[in-house]
Amino acid sequence: MGSTDFAIDSQDIRFVVREWLHAEQLSQHSRFESFDADTLDLMLQESEKFSGEVLFPTRKATDREGCRVEDGRVRMPKCLTAPYQQSYELGWGSLTSDPEYGGQGAPVTLGLAVREATVAGSQALTSFFALTSGAARLILSFGAQDLKDRYVPHLLSGRFNGTMCLSEPHAGSDVGASITSAVPTGDGSYHIKGTKCWISNGDADLVENTIHAVLARVEGAPAGTKGLTLFAVPRVHVNDNGSLGDSNDVDVPSIESKMGLHGSPTCVVKFGENDGCIGWPLGGEGQGMPCMFQMMNEARIGTATIGLGIGSLAAQNATAYAKERVQGPHITKSRDPDTPRVPIIEHPAVRFNLLQMRARVEAMRALMFKATFLLDEIATTEDLEVRSAKQNLVDLLTPMCKGWCTEVGLEVVQTGIQVLGGVGYTKDFPMEQFYRDLRVAPIYEGTTDIQALDLVGRKMAKNQGALFVALLQQIGEFLPSLGEHPRLAALGRVFEGYCETLSDLALGAQEVMQIRGIEGVALHATPFLMFCSSVTAGWLLLQQAVVAHDRLEALKREHGIGDLETPEFLKENPQAQFYENKLITTQFFVEAVIPQYEGLMAAAKRRNYDPLDIVF
Amino acid sequence: MGSTDFAIDSQDIRFVVREWLHAEQLSQHSRFESFDADTLDLMLQESEKFSGEVLFPTRKATDREGCRVEDGRVRMPKCLTAPYQQSYELGWGSLTSDPEYGGQGAPVTLGLAVREATVAGSQALTSFFALTSGAARLILSFGAQDLKDRYVPHLLSGRFNGTMCLSEPHAGSDVGASITSAVPTGDGSYHIKGTKCWISNGDADLVENTIHAVLARVEGAPAGTKGLTLFAVPRVHVNDNGSLGDSNDVDVPSIESKMGLHGSPTCVVKFGENDGCIGWPLGGEGQGMPCMFQMMNEARIGTATIGLGIGSLAAQNATAYAKERVQGPHITKSRDPDTPRVPIIEHPAVRFNLLQMRARVEAMRALMFKATFLLDEIATTEDLEVRSAKQNLVDLLTPMCKGWCTEVGLEVVQTGIQVLGGVGYTKDFPMEQFYRDLRVAPIYEGTTDIQALDLVGRKMAKNQGALFVALLQQIGEFLPSLGEHPRLAALGRVFEGYCETLSDLALGAQEVMQIRGIEGVALHATPFLMFCSSVTAGWLLLQQAVVAHDRLEALKREHGIGDLETPEFLKENPQAQFYENKLITTQFFVEAVIPQYEGLMAAAKRRNYDPLDIVF
Repeated sequence: MGSTDFAIDSQDIRFVVREWLHAEQLSQHSRFESFDADTLDLMLQESEKFSGEVLFPTRKATDREGCRVEDGRVRMPKCLTAPYQQSYELGWGSLTSDPEYGGQGAPVTLGLAVREATVAGSQALTSFFALTSGAARLILSFGAQDLKDRYVPHLLSGRFNGTMCLSEPHAGSDVGASITSAVPTGDGSYHIKGTKCWISNGDADLVENTIHAVLARVEGAPAGTKGLTLFAVPRVHVNDNGSLGDSNDVDVPSIESKMGLHGSPTCVVKFGENDGCIGWPLGGEGQGMPCMFQMMNEARIGTATIGLGIGSLAAQNATAYAKERVQGPHITKSRDPDTPRVPIIEHPAVRFNLLQMRARVEAMRALMFKATFLLDEIATTEDLEVRSAKQNLVDLLTPMCKGWCTEVGLEVVQTGIQVLGGVGYTKDFPMEQFYRDLRVAPIYEGTTDIQALDLVGRKMAKNQGALFVALLQQIGEFLPSLGEHPRLAALGRVFEGYCETLSDLALGAQEVMQIRGIEGVALHATPFLMFCSSVTAGWLLLQQAVVAHDRLEALKREHGIGDLETPEFLKENPQAQFYENKLITTQFFVEAVIPQYEGLMAAAKRRNYDPLDIVF
Repeated sequence: MGSTDFAIDSQDIRFVVREWLHAEQLSQHSRFESFDADTLDLMLQESEKFSGEVLFPTRKATDREGCRVEDGRVRMPKCLTAPYQQSYELGWGSLTSDPEYGGQGAPVTLGLAVREATVAGSQALTSFFALTSGAARLILSFGAQDLKDRYVPHLLSGRFNGTMCLSEPHAGSDVGASITSAVPTGDGSYHIKGTKCWISNGDADLVENTIHAVLARVEGAPAGTKGLTLFAVPRVHVNDNGSLGDSNDVDVPSIESKMGLHGSPTCVVKFGENDGCIGWPLGGEGQGMPCMFQMMNEARIGTATIGLGIGSLAAQNATAYAKERVQGPHITKSRDPDTPRVPIIEHPAVRFNLLQMRARVEAMRALMFKATFLLDEIATTEDLEVRSAKQNLVDLLTPMCKGWCTEVGLEVVQTGIQVLGGVGYTKDFPMEQFYRDLRVAPIYEGTTDIQALDLVGRKMAKNQGALFVALLQQIGEFLPSLGEHPRLAALGRVFEGYCETLSDLALGAQEVMQIRGIEGVALHATPFLMFCSSVTAGWLLLQQAVVAHDRLEALKREHGIGDLETPEFLKENPQAQFYENKLITTQFFVEAVIPQYEGLMAAAKRRNYDPLDIVF
């Protein structure tokens, strides 16, 4: 591949899916019986091919053309029309959705692997797939049978798209302050009236219709989030035979002009301006937030995938560029003006940046795949206690995935621009667009700060901290096994130090509460999220390193390779080199990357509350 | 001010210039006699006014309209024409240049203060002022009298602009590989032939003519940087009476399409395509790099100003936004749905981000003003030993200013986008453009990695490390004075720890050389630059904190305020609050910010060489 080409790290993805998680074993369960090893391998290959050949060529034109509102409809970049259709024809758009309604019913682990590819191919279209699948799932979970039959098949075929309408002009993150109203009509439906904003894909001429999942307050309901109910609100009514009926008084007067992600219109959506908008409840009255959270948690993991997918492509583009671009002498010969110029990948600072990128990408991938694989395990486990333990871990990992991976993805792209230098700042290379497209990820679906409050204030507070204690326990039980691996034992001791710091910080929260109250705890929540996520990802990379270590040793035994011959063997055997690199990447992540996130914790460690005290 | 308005932190700038550095004392020297206290104050005020009222209104249009090549000329955004003219009419464009040729002859400390304002007003126009002043200075330093008379008055009046032509298509940072050729004509001039790229402001219809400072290799000169000579090459010849003469065969066939900074054309410049391009030497044959470095060092500090100026404006815009934007309940009342919504500046995570921004901005300002004030001190000192000691410190600070401040400026803007949330991602607010405009700063005029190699490989290696030892000594001599200030003594001890780490790392370089050679040292040069710069900036902030502490105590004595009445006094007295805030900001920088850069050093501390060992 070249520095501007599409690529996914199929070697690492395959290692994660097949050698670390053994996702093929999910096919032992009837639900996933068709997703055996061969199918997984084939779908990984095909989705990579599709993303590279069909989606990625739209990248530049999507950015340059953008979306616009014309005659009351959102006009999408033309280059997206055919790829959108194909995505649904081939099933990539609704891969993990319910097969009864037209989805493919794949494990979400496979869904993540595919989405990593499609998001790198087209972040815009992937946002359609993600939000539409989410809306379909909401309707399937909470809607009446008629709604399921009327909307879901069309959502999963890509004929309609779906949205998630929470924010209002005066209340972006503060959903509890929503004032969009719902008044019962008497037949089970409601009149919906209000303005929502920041609605991704609120309208698009790629589709015939849009089904909005709208939070609104039923007349007389209490203030705050507890008074909210979720509604399915179509842009155009759908007749019994599936054809489109009357307009439902849903209007998109304008879209935002954004730094990037120009292929996903961010809409203002007005419901019932002429008092003619009808919605149908999803879940009971006042159950809007718990219902929406089902979609939000999915959306949060989906958003995290942007950091992983774009980050991984950026890392590979930067590495390819560093191999292509010849400039400057090797540093050991810099005083000799006649020495040949070398590819910049031979410059130590460039190598440092590239490994910074690679280690972060593999760490993000470890964290994300762990979270999704847990979801598949839950779906294929009958034992309630096991399910509950796994769900607890997912609950803890969700804000880490969303908060950490979106921030880390940006760091990776930011470093990628630097590796490219001047050309990284130009529009001739994809890197600057990657940054602009990705920059929204730490903001939407709940900002990083909101993820941190979710982690610290909700997930860690639950059951007197039992979820967090269970995580530390799992890590603690794993670490001794590193002692058996000579190359990993020392690394395990370094890692143990981070776990102690993490544990001390968590235990210290009580004391902080006493000194500075909840404000003191909230003050350091985001740095804690960043550090805690990096440690969690480090634990997972160490698990992978054990696998890689054992595989490498097995390969060497198989080929009768001794330690002295190893360097030569690695050069000849790409798989062996992959395992060796996994050990190096893990070591670098633990020794050099985690401390960068630990550095963010200095304020918390020193009990520094200056930000609360300063008068701005 | 509002969240989209222009602002500079005039209170901190005035404190730095007048209360910390006492730049007004430079007027005791005949060279700067007209720049007394009143003049400094007036010029700070006026430049702020000019930047806000004349330059800043061009920001959005400059970005949207951009530059284009038409009929062989670079057409600039129209909105820049009048502000460009006015900048020169009022003297802001050539503030620190030689008064004999039309400059204002101001101290560079004042120049920095003004440039902090103008760069926040228009990064594009400020790049014109900076490069043109630099070219004028090169001609004045190294050109024949005829060149000075022919070009410099027109450069300093803004009628012409200047450039710096180093990079070539095959050699961006690797200047020694330049192949642009120079052949003597016999009359002291040379035929110039070659293509330069990445030339900022290589042509512009704002000016009548462009004078390029071009590195070229005289026929038969050795390879590498030592074979390079610097030439002044006009786009159009200039007649004796100052009128324009014949074309000089200099062509700008294209400009780069960039992520941002759309008001500064990045040009490909072709010299002598038709063998008709003439240049005149600046300095002797083979002296090109040492001569150019005079301009480069100035340009590097100039580029660092972008990080400071844009960073400071971003911090103030974000703070203003956080005060304006009402959203969510106070965290102590988050369970009460009826509690009033508060401005987001009351949310702890927002305050944390705002102080992160503010502390970094004040630290950048301390570092930059120290470096420029040293230059003024050198210019007004006769004592050769003192001059040399100060020059050594400037040499050390220059790569820190360029490397650290450009990266840190970006961090500040990046945080600013996050504080604004969704609107920060839209083009309705300046923040996203700040990011795009600023993103080039860590790349051009030598990337951060190149600054790091300059610091570690050149400046710190000079005289067996004497420059660095002298810096540590100065810090070491200052620290005990903190013991006299009860609020600063503990902070001094924390800070001492960083100095020890810095010293250990520097001393360890010898050992690293033995183990992994120069590659091992270069590998950790950039993290070292980042950490070392933050410690140096921390030292300067601590100096400021001592001043602020003493001033605050004096104010309290003056008003008869005891400790108990202090909180009330601070509320009433903005100057007292400023001093108090300086103490808080310094404490936060030392306790919470420096460790973030120290975190980057983990690889070096652990002697991790993974990036050299991995096979990409």
